[in-house]
Amino acid sequence: MTTILHNATLATMTEGYGLVEGGAVVIEGERILWAGPEGAMPATPGERLDLGGRLVTPGLIDCHTHLVFAGDRAREFEMRLNGATYEEVARAGGGILSTVRATREASEEALLAAALPRVDAMLAEGVAVIEVKSGYGLDIATELRMLRAARRIAEQRRVRIVTSFLGAHALPPEYAGRHDDYITEVALPALRAAHAEGLVDAVDGFCEGIAFSPAQIARVFAEARVLGLPVKLHAEQLSNLHGAALAARHGALSADHLEYLDEAGVRAMAEAGTVAVILPGAFYTLRETQPPPIALLRRHGVPMAVATDCNPGSSPMTSLTLAMNMACTLFRMTPEEALAGATRHAAKALGLADCGRIAPGFRADLAVWDAAHPAELAYRIGATPLHARFFGGRRDA
Amino acid sequence: MTTILHNATLATMTEGYGLVEGGAVVIEGERILWAGPEGAMPATPGERLDLGGRLVTPGLIDCHTHLVFAGDRAREFEMRLNGATYEEVARAGGGILSTVRATREASEEALLAAALPRVDAMLAEGVAVIEVKSGYGLDIATELRMLRAARRIAEQRRVRIVTSFLGAHALPPEYAGRHDDYITEVALPALRAAHAEGLVDAVDGFCEGIAFSPAQIARVFAEARVLGLPVKLHAEQLSNLHGAALAARHGALSADHLEYLDEAGVRAMAEAGTVAVILPGAFYTLRETQPPPIALLRRHGVPMAVATDCNPGSSPMTSLTLAMNMACTLFRMTPEEALAGATRHAAKALGLADCGRIAPGFRADLAVWDAAHPAELAYRIGATPLHARFFGGRRDA
Ligand SMILES: [Zn+2]
Ligand SMILES: [Zn+2]
Repeated sequence: MTTILHNATLATMTEGYGLVEGGAVVIEGERILWAGPEGAMPATPGERLDLGGRLVTPGLIDCHTHLVFAGDRAREFEMRLNGATYEEVARAGGGILSTVRATREASEEALLAAALPRVDAMLAEGVAVIEVKSGYGLDIATELRMLRAARRIAEQRRVRIVTSFLGAHALPPEYAGRHDDYITEVALPALRAAHAEGLVDAVDGFCEGIAFSPAQIARVFAEARVLGLPVKLHAEQLSNLHGAALAARHGALSADHLEYLDEAGVRAMAEAGTVAVILPGAFYTLRETQPPPIALLRRHGVPMAVATDCNPGSSPMTSLTLAMNMACTLFRMTPEEALAGATRHAAKALGLADCGRIAPGFRADLAVWDAAHPAELAYRIGATPLHARFFGGRRDA
Repeated sequence: MTTILHNATLATMTEGYGLVEGGAVVIEGERILWAGPEGAMPATPGERLDLGGRLVTPGLIDCHTHLVFAGDRAREFEMRLNGATYEEVARAGGGILSTVRATREASEEALLAAALPRVDAMLAEGVAVIEVKSGYGLDIATELRMLRAARRIAEQRRVRIVTSFLGAHALPPEYAGRHDDYITEVALPALRAAHAEGLVDAVDGFCEGIAFSPAQIARVFAEARVLGLPVKLHAEQLSNLHGAALAARHGALSADHLEYLDEAGVRAMAEAGTVAVILPGAFYTLRETQPPPIALLRRHGVPMAVATDCNPGSSPMTSLTLAMNMACTLFRMTPEEALAGATRHAAKALGLADCGRIAPGFRADLAVWDAAHPAELAYRIGATPLHARFFGGRRDA
């Protein structure tokens, strides 16, 4: 079946915005057959859809989320704002381990049900691809259950799910002080089991003083290499442990957060082609003060992606366009960089070569906006003027 | 007609959250007849609606918006992020005067049409009452046209609109250097004409170095007093001109922004019963660094409201729950204060005594949320789990 979208402004995102005024897109099945100025369109039979001059972008890609989890942390948010100390929050059962506890107690069905409203919020903003991490199980069974729930999202909704195994996310209480034992006894066996079940698209870790050391992360990355899986890393969020350079040495798809990244790390990423995933939601929520080195990343030509980091603690956010606004407002990325970060560069961060651009052969995942210019998408705060979403060539009902 | 909402958690907002678990609300026509624990509900015939344990709050109230305007400022946002100076932006036709130009050129019909999507975004978040200001006309005809468009929103949508005349918002280029002439020749006659047409619920001004002096604002307030209209003021946003104290001396409903408010101003507001309207969207967008004195306002018992300040320049935001999140995250208000700020205290800021609480005699404007606890409303970023909205006792289709 052929569909022709016409009378549109295209932000093809093939390079910069790749703007085409008076543009048209020819869709054949799940793929884009042709895109360009309507006047140059080859004569094509098919169903024609007049978009009334609206803006069309590639379907958005959220390349860093933790959206499968149980419970919420609203009461902890409230306690802190009422002046509770971290100890008081911890004594009341708060913090990441409260999410681990709730997630361990939740069935696969319950995890899926809890995730779907968050997915729906993203689809309502034109998202077509969502990365989802494990990392709130921290035991073998729950890590696998989280990934199974993540995979099942794609059966329940018209969205592409890309999974990351994040066993090395935090240390569960039963391994207090025994990080390497946790890697040996839980993270690595869980990774092997999850991979054997086809649940892992990439391997992630959290390299930070409060999480795992570069040496411990390197053990996880070594196992990923054995399994033939690409890696990525939460790096330099709160301090500089040179995690980005470690990730780059392992040919990582991305290094994420990066507030404390130094120029050597930037160079290492540039050479390895590792994408910098910028996560302003956590910076905003944690009231951090040191922004990631955007100008340096730009100067060295490191591709920058932008994502929600959707998670119950440091970024309870489901709006990718709000993350784009924050990337501009808080980090001084340009609206064009922010949109590339939610399309072309987000695809690269996930190792996907068939989405994130409007070009022949790419998937016909498209977002149609009540907007005239793509800068509007990052400019508006907390509003997403989505008019229609196409996933695999088919418009949402 | 009587409707009984039951099996709900009520945040009545009568004092604090006013939480009622296992609560019920009896609605008679447009009003609330009774609210409390279901077990204590008097026997009432009527249609019963099981809310499945969901949270019910008063319909939200956005007490400070500039949502009637033409054009947008996305390109200006982009220019700035690409490093353009203020002069370059101004030379390219940017800044508030670009909105004035576009608004002057827009018909009443066009202004209404442009405003409705912004209104719809707010209603989708459970908003029941929206304040709308003039102030992008800066000539008599356009100020009136803006207010007529604002009034007509309530004919097109199920929402209550409260208008503020904001002739003293900015100085139009034709009056450069002649602030007092502008007040004499435009602001005051426009106010009288708008009032004669029934278009004005309150009178506002912008007291700032880049706008109008306290003495000029006092002239507008004097006219408001002659007409019997309440006043409010944009005060202490960028510097301390003691506008809040001026407003308090005039018995103002509210003083808004207040980043540079000092303790004398806080005391004056406390004594006058003037509400502090907190606008974190502009603080966030303008990357201000001095937050309003929340602790001081709290200590002196000044009621605090929270609003979007929806406008095309400093706060292109239509999400009141995001403003609540920002009030907590950026200004350390508590989630309870933020919700009071979008309900009970927002009503007070508008001089409305019949909304903003779930209590007998109050309007049955209600928001039903997919949430268990009201802290969730400020905790989530850029997501609004609205399940249903009741306006004047009737559920939206
Ligand atoms: Zn993360
Ligand atoms: Zn304002």
